[in-house]
Amino acid sequence: MTDNTHQQFMAAAIALSKQAIREGRGGPYGAVVVKDGAIVGRGMNEVTSVNDPTAHAEMTAIRQACEQLGSWNLAGCELYTSCEPCPMCLGAIYWARVDKIYYGNTKEIAARFGFNSQYFYDEVAKAREDRQIAMVLLMPEDAITAFEEWEQQRDRQSY
Amino acid sequence: MTDNTHQQFMAAAIALSKQAIREGRGGPYGAVVVKDGAIVGRGMNEVTSVNDPTAHAEMTAIRQACEQLGSWNLAGCELYTSCEPCPMCLGAIYWARVDKIYYGNTKEIAARFGFNSQYFYDEVAKAREDRQIAMVLLMPEDAITAFEEWEQQRDRQSY
Repeated sequence: MTDNTHQQFMAAAIALSKQAIREGRGGPYGAVVVKDGAIVGRGMNEVTSVNDPTAHAEMTAIRQACEQLGSWNLAGCELYTSCEPCPMCLGAIYWARVDKIYYGNTKEIAARFGFNSQYFYDEVAKAREDRQIAMVLLMPEDAITAFEEWEQQRDRQSY
Repeated sequence: MTDNTHQQFMAAAIALSKQAIREGRGGPYGAVVVKDGAIVGRGMNEVTSVNDPTAHAEMTAIRQACEQLGSWNLAGCELYTSCEPCPMCLGAIYWARVDKIYYGNTKEIAARFGFNSQYFYDEVAKAREDRQIAMVLLMPEDAITAFEEWEQQRDRQSY
């Protein structure tokens, strides 16, 4: 792909980030998923307008691309996002097997405008007993039986 | 809440984890969100059946709870999940401001059955230049203008 094409896709992500704030959808974030030189998914931050804390630009772009392509697997796709992803979105990018991430703002720039994803990175990196949100182990002897049942299934679809 | 109630909610999460595999929805994961002693959101893993890599049990339970409560903010809610969350789901839990997490299986137990969320934890904890999925900074001078526009908005809704 030429640099010009890369820039066109990033420009599309940035345009979505501005659309999000101009239309009151949510924070200033936009993203597109690209496959074979064409946009197959678009997203903007819509957390506050649709009351969905998972409705980040990257998440919506990934979900739309998967719907468009009929697969949960986006290998062969690249993501252009107006800002470096938070851990939730980065996790989704990994689960979706996206090939490469292009990002416009660093998380350090975002922090200067009040969006502190570093806090989320710090929390995710902690041992579970040290996190701000308490994590309590409960009924492990019962919970494991689902994995045991899964292991017995012959037609299970691993991913 | 009594221990018995806690166990009932975890039992509901575990039942969903088994329903997911018995009905061929996805991997053996279930979760419920609880507020004031009542379940307000339910989820099971549906990644492979609905072609959505973000359709983890915790994500779906959070989204359903937010829809039910009409808010992206789940402060005052607790999450019961059949397994320790991956970074994507943990990120969503933090974004949603969930009070507390009860989990049935540790990620170490999940890994014994082929579900290695530790890889995702390791990747998220890395510096961006060291990750397996390449991250490329592109057009930062343009991308920052969305944050600058956001800062000028008087009616912006921070979160």
